[in-house]
Amino acid sequence: MSSTDLVTSQTLSTTTQEKFATLRSLLVTHQLDGYLVTAADEHLNEYLPEAKRRRIWLSGFSGSAGDLLVGQETAWLFVDSRYYEQADLEVDPALMQVSKLGLEGQKTLDETLEALGREAAKAGSTFRLGFDPFTITVSQFRSFEKQLEPSGVSLVPLAGNLVDRVRLQQPWLDAEPLPTYADSRLFYLPDVQTGETIAQKLTRVREKLQKANADVLPITKLDQIAWLYNLRGWDVPYNPVFIAYTIVTAAEAYLFTNLDRIPPDLHTFLQPQVNLLPYEAYAETLKALVAQAPNHRVLLDPQHTTMGTYELLTDPAAAIACKIVEGNNPIEGMKARKNAIEITQMQQANLKASRAKTRTLKWVSDQFNSDQALTETDVAATVERFYAEETDFQGLSFNTIAGAGANSSIVHYGTPNPQRVLHSGDFLLLDSGAQYASGTTDDTRTLIVGDPTPEQIECYTEVLKAHINCAMQRFPKGTTGAQLDGITRSTLWFAGLDYGHGTGHGVGAFLNVHEGPNGISKKVSEPLEPGMVTSIEPGFYKPGWGGIRLENLYVVKDLTPTDETPAADSKPDPNKLSWYGFESLTYIPFDQRLIDRDRLDDRQREWLEHYNAAIVAKLSATLSPEEVVWLKDVCTV
Amino acid sequence: MSSTDLVTSQTLSTTTQEKFATLRSLLVTHQLDGYLVTAADEHLNEYLPEAKRRRIWLSGFSGSAGDLLVGQETAWLFVDSRYYEQADLEVDPALMQVSKLGLEGQKTLDETLEALGREAAKAGSTFRLGFDPFTITVSQFRSFEKQLEPSGVSLVPLAGNLVDRVRLQQPWLDAEPLPTYADSRLFYLPDVQTGETIAQKLTRVREKLQKANADVLPITKLDQIAWLYNLRGWDVPYNPVFIAYTIVTAAEAYLFTNLDRIPPDLHTFLQPQVNLLPYEAYAETLKALVAQAPNHRVLLDPQHTTMGTYELLTDPAAAIACKIVEGNNPIEGMKARKNAIEITQMQQANLKASRAKTRTLKWVSDQFNSDQALTETDVAATVERFYAEETDFQGLSFNTIAGAGANSSIVHYGTPNPQRVLHSGDFLLLDSGAQYASGTTDDTRTLIVGDPTPEQIECYTEVLKAHINCAMQRFPKGTTGAQLDGITRSTLWFAGLDYGHGTGHGVGAFLNVHEGPNGISKKVSEPLEPGMVTSIEPGFYKPGWGGIRLENLYVVKDLTPTDETPAADSKPDPNKLSWYGFESLTYIPFDQRLIDRDRLDDRQREWLEHYNAAIVAKLSATLSPEEVVWLKDVCTV
Repeated sequence: MSSTDLVTSQTLSTTTQEKFATLRSLLVTHQLDGYLVTAADEHLNEYLPEAKRRRIWLSGFSGSAGDLLVGQETAWLFVDSRYYEQADLEVDPALMQVSKLGLEGQKTLDETLEALGREAAKAGSTFRLGFDPFTITVSQFRSFEKQLEPSGVSLVPLAGNLVDRVRLQQPWLDAEPLPTYADSRLFYLPDVQTGETIAQKLTRVREKLQKANADVLPITKLDQIAWLYNLRGWDVPYNPVFIAYTIVTAAEAYLFTNLDRIPPDLHTFLQPQVNLLPYEAYAETLKALVAQAPNHRVLLDPQHTTMGTYELLTDPAAAIACKIVEGNNPIEGMKARKNAIEITQMQQANLKASRAKTRTLKWVSDQFNSDQALTETDVAATVERFYAEETDFQGLSFNTIAGAGANSSIVHYGTPNPQRVLHSGDFLLLDSGAQYASGTTDDTRTLIVGDPTPEQIECYTEVLKAHINCAMQRFPKGTTGAQLDGITRSTLWFAGLDYGHGTGHGVGAFLNVHEGPNGISKKVSEPLEPGMVTSIEPGFYKPGWGGIRLENLYVVKDLTPTDETPAADSKPDPNKLSWYGFESLTYIPFDQRLIDRDRLDDRQREWLEHYNAAIVAKLSATLSPEEVVWLKDVCTV
Repeated sequence: MSSTDLVTSQTLSTTTQEKFATLRSLLVTHQLDGYLVTAADEHLNEYLPEAKRRRIWLSGFSGSAGDLLVGQETAWLFVDSRYYEQADLEVDPALMQVSKLGLEGQKTLDETLEALGREAAKAGSTFRLGFDPFTITVSQFRSFEKQLEPSGVSLVPLAGNLVDRVRLQQPWLDAEPLPTYADSRLFYLPDVQTGETIAQKLTRVREKLQKANADVLPITKLDQIAWLYNLRGWDVPYNPVFIAYTIVTAAEAYLFTNLDRIPPDLHTFLQPQVNLLPYEAYAETLKALVAQAPNHRVLLDPQHTTMGTYELLTDPAAAIACKIVEGNNPIEGMKARKNAIEITQMQQANLKASRAKTRTLKWVSDQFNSDQALTETDVAATVERFYAEETDFQGLSFNTIAGAGANSSIVHYGTPNPQRVLHSGDFLLLDSGAQYASGTTDDTRTLIVGDPTPEQIECYTEVLKAHINCAMQRFPKGTTGAQLDGITRSTLWFAGLDYGHGTGHGVGAFLNVHEGPNGISKKVSEPLEPGMVTSIEPGFYKPGWGGIRLENLYVVKDLTPTDETPAADSKPDPNKLSWYGFESLTYIPFDQRLIDRDRLDDRQREWLEHYNAAIVAKLSATLSPEEVVWLKDVCTV
C-alpha cells in the first residue's frame, strides 16, 4: 500500500465512521438494535444504479455483492470468496467485522443475527432488526422470519430507507450529492425489431392473468417492463432498462416512471396505450386500485417481488380487501420465448460480437507472434474496441473478464490488470459481451499463449466435449435445464473434473444478459422451449493453475419431423413427441492447439467440423483477406 | 360379456345405486352439494388396506387410482389411461359419468368442480364440496383452495368419513361387514439387522428437530414409523408396515396403534422407550400436547401430511397456541441413507431375488425350447414360486407385471392374462419384486421369445445403453436425480426414443418398494448420497408393438480417493470434491440375443462384461450344475 493509498483509506475510514454514527442515531430514534443494508435495490437489479449503491456509499466497500449489518456497537460485512481480498483492502476492521463466507468459523448473516437474538432473549428482550422492505424479496423475508424469529429477532420493516436519510443530511448532502436517478432518455423499439406491438403483448398478458384467476398484476422488474412496452433506457449499467413500475389490470395499464425524460412524440405515442404517471405515484395508485373495488385478485411472484409491494397490498391500516394469488409472473415466460423477428435480430447481434471476438483472438496471436508485451487490460480494451466498431453498438452487456494464467481460474474476475503481462504457457480466458440495438451477446473463449502442456490440452478438450455434448443434444418437449446440465457434465465427471457454476443462463433480446426463467443448472426445473436463448458454458478451474470456460449462445429450435421436413431415417415416432435442439448464435473459433481430437468421439468430431465450417461461412464475407486466411487456418485441423 | 357377468354387473349397479342414495341423504343433512371420495387413506398409503378402499366399495370401480365426486343428481369418476377399459367394464354409465383423463374433451376433477362452482355462482350461491380432511394432503388442499374458491366452490372439511357412515348402515353392515383393520401381528427387527437402536434413531430425529427450530413432530406415514421403531407388520398389501401414528417431542415419544396385536414381550420391550397408546388417542394427545405448554413449534411436511392433522393443530375452537414450521420430515432422509448393516442385508435379499428371476428366465427358455405353451400367468406364477423358495421370504413387494407382446407396452400392466400364450417374436416384460426379512427387491428384465427383429434389437440395445450410462456414471457430491435422469436419456434421445416415466425411485430396507426422498427423474432436486438405494429403469414403449424396461437396484457408494484407496490415475483432485457412484444389488443376465454390441462404446462394453462376470461369480455357487452351464452361456458373448 503506498502512502497516498493510506491517506485515502484513512479519510474513507473517518467518513464511514461519521456515516455510521448518524445511522446509529436514527436506530435510537426508531428503537432498533440493528439495521440491515443489502446490495439490492427497489427493482432487484443485478447492476445497481449509482444512486442506489447504498451499501457501497455507507461502508466504503465497493464489491457488487455483500450484506452489511450495522448494530449500535458493532457492524458486520458479509462477503463471498470473490471479495475476500477486496474487503481486506477497503474495510477498516475497527469499524466493521468482515465475515468471509465459506471459510471455517466465519458466521453468516443469519447465524450472526441468531446469536444476537439469543443474547437479547437471555436478557428478556428481542433484537429489533430494521430494514427497508423494498430491498428484500417476499421469499427472503419469509425465510428470515422462519429462521430468525424463534431466536429472538424481531423483524421491523421501516418505510423510507435509513441510509438515504443519512445521505440527505449534511455534510454529505453537499459533499457527496446524490447521483442523478432514472433520467436516461427513453426510446421505443419499432415493431419490425420486436415483432409484437404493445397492444398484442398486453392482450397476451391479460389472457395469462385470467388463467391465473387474477385481475391485477403489479410489475417491479425492469426487464419485464421494458419488454412489455417495447421501451429501453440506460438507467443502470449494462442492462438497457429504465427505472419504472407498472400495473396491468383487465382493462387498464399504468406506467410509473420519470416522465420528464420521455420525448414528446414518444409520450404522444404511448399515452393512448398506457396511463403514464410519475414514478412516485406507484404505491398510492396500487393501493387505490385495489381499494376501489373489493375482491381484486392480485398476482404476485414472491421470489421476484419486494416485500415493499407486498406490504402495500396487505396494509391493515388501509383495510385493503384484495386477495394475493402467488404465482409466476407470466411476462417472464413470454419474454423468454423469442419470436422469429427477435431471433433474426439476435443472430445479427451475435454475429457482430463473434466477429469482434474473432478479430481479438487474431490480434492477440499477432501481437504475441511479433513479441509485443500484452496485458490483461490490453486484451479487454481490444475486444471492447472491436465491439464498438460494429454498427448499432450500444455498450457492453457486462464487465469484460480477461484473466491470464492463475487469474483465469477466478470465475468472476472482473478487474483486468494493466500490470499482468501475458506469458508463454498462460491460459487467457476472455468472457465478454455487447449490447447492440438488435440484441444482446455473451461468449467466452479460452486460449493458450505459446505452447500448451498435455494437462492443459486434456482439460481444455474435456471442457470442449462437455460443451459439444450439450450443444448437439436432441431432446423431447418437457426436457428441463437440470437434465441438460447432467448431460453436459457426464464426460467431464468421468475425467474427474467439474465446475462450480451453472451450465447456462437465459439471455434477453436487447435486454438483460441474465434472464429467467430458463437456464441450464441442477436448480432449473423449467423446460427449454423453442425460441428460448441460453448460454452453454461449461468450464474447469484449478486455483493457481488457471481456468477454462467455453461459452456460446444458442436458440432452442423445434426439430420435430413434419410432412415438409421428414425425419432423416424416415421412421415415424410412435409416441408423437416434439423434438427440440440448439442452434448456435455464436461463431468464434475454439483454440485448435488445445484440442486432442483423439479424445473426441465421431459425433463430437462431426459437430466440431460443422461448426468450424459455419464460422468460416458466416464471417468470411465481412473480414479482410488477411483475416480470412487466418480464420480458415484456425478452423482447419 | 357372459350372462353370469351381466347378472353380477346388474346386482353391483343396484347396490351402488342404493349406496349413492344413502350418501346423498347424508349430503342433505350436511347441506352439501357434493362429496369427494379420493383413493387415499389416513396414512397416504400407496397400497390401501381393505377397510379403507372406500371408493372401490362405494362405486364398484376396482382400479387402484381415480377420484369419485358424488353430487345430488350426478356422480363423476376420473380415471387415467391405465383404467379406461376397466372403468367401461365395471361402471354403469347411468350412475356415474366416467372422465377419461388425457382424452380430448374430458374434464378433470378441478374443471368439473370449477364448472359446478360457476353454475352455483350464477344462481347467487356456492357449490359446497364436502370431503374427509384425513384423505387429502395439506398441499392438495391449498391447491384446491387456490383453484376452486374463485370459481364459487366452498370447501367443507367434515369430521368423520361419510362413506364410512354409509358403510355402517344396514343392509351393508351385515351384508358387507367391515374388513378387519390394523390387526396384523407386530414384529421387531433386531439391531443386528437394522444397525441402529430405537434410542439412537430418536436421538438423531431430535437433533434434526432442534435444527429445524421445532420441538414436536407428528408422523403419519407408516414407513417412517416402522423405520423409527424397527417394527414391521402386514396391515397393508406389499408394504411391511402397520397402521399407526407417532409423535416425537424433545423429551417423549408416543406410538398410537392397535395395542392388542403387540405380543406381550414386545410390549414390555417397547414401553420404556415409547409411550404405547391406542390408535384412537392420536388426535386428542396431539391437541393436549400442544395445548399444555404454549409456543410449541410443530414440524409439518405439507406434501406428506393430511389436512386432518393440520386441522388438529390449527383448530380455533381448541385455541391451540402452537406455531407450525413447514419443512421436510427429517426421517425421510435418514431412512433413505442405509447404514452398512442395512446395505449388507439388501445385498443378500437382492441376491435371492436375482437368483429367482434368473431361474425364471432359464425356465421360460426351457419351456419354450421344449415347445410347451406358456401364458403370462404361468410366468408370473413361476417367478413368485422361485421367490418363495428362498429363505426368509415374506411376500411380494408389489404385484408382478408379466406382459407379453403388445401387453409389454403397458407400463403398469398388473393383471397377467392366463389366456395370453407367448408366441415367437413376442417381447416378455417381467417386472417383479419380493420382500425378504433382510430387505426389499425390485427388478425388471425384458426377453425375446424366439428370434428378434432388427428393430427389437435396436430398441433393446438403446435402452440397455441408457441403463449402463446411468449405472456407470461417476458423479460429485450434490448431484441430483434430475441431472442423472438427463444422463440416462441422452443416447436414447439421439436414437429418437424416450419413456414417459421416471428413471428411478428409492427403495426401503425391508420396507416400501417406493420411498423418497431420492429418485432419478426430472422432478427430483434431491442429491444422491452414499447409502441411498435407487432403481435404474429406463425403457421404451410402442403401443401395439411392445415395450422394454431394464431395471436393477443400486446403492450409492463413496468413491472419493483416499490415502488407502488412491485414484487410479493418482492425480489429486485440486478442488477436493467427493465422488460417488453406483454399485449393483441386482445380478440377472440381460438378453444377449437382443444386444447389438456394435452400438455400445468401449466403456459400455466394459461395464457389461464386468457385470456379466459378476453375475456368474455371485450366483454360480448356489445354482445347480445345469443352471450354471446355462448361466455361463447367456453371460458370454
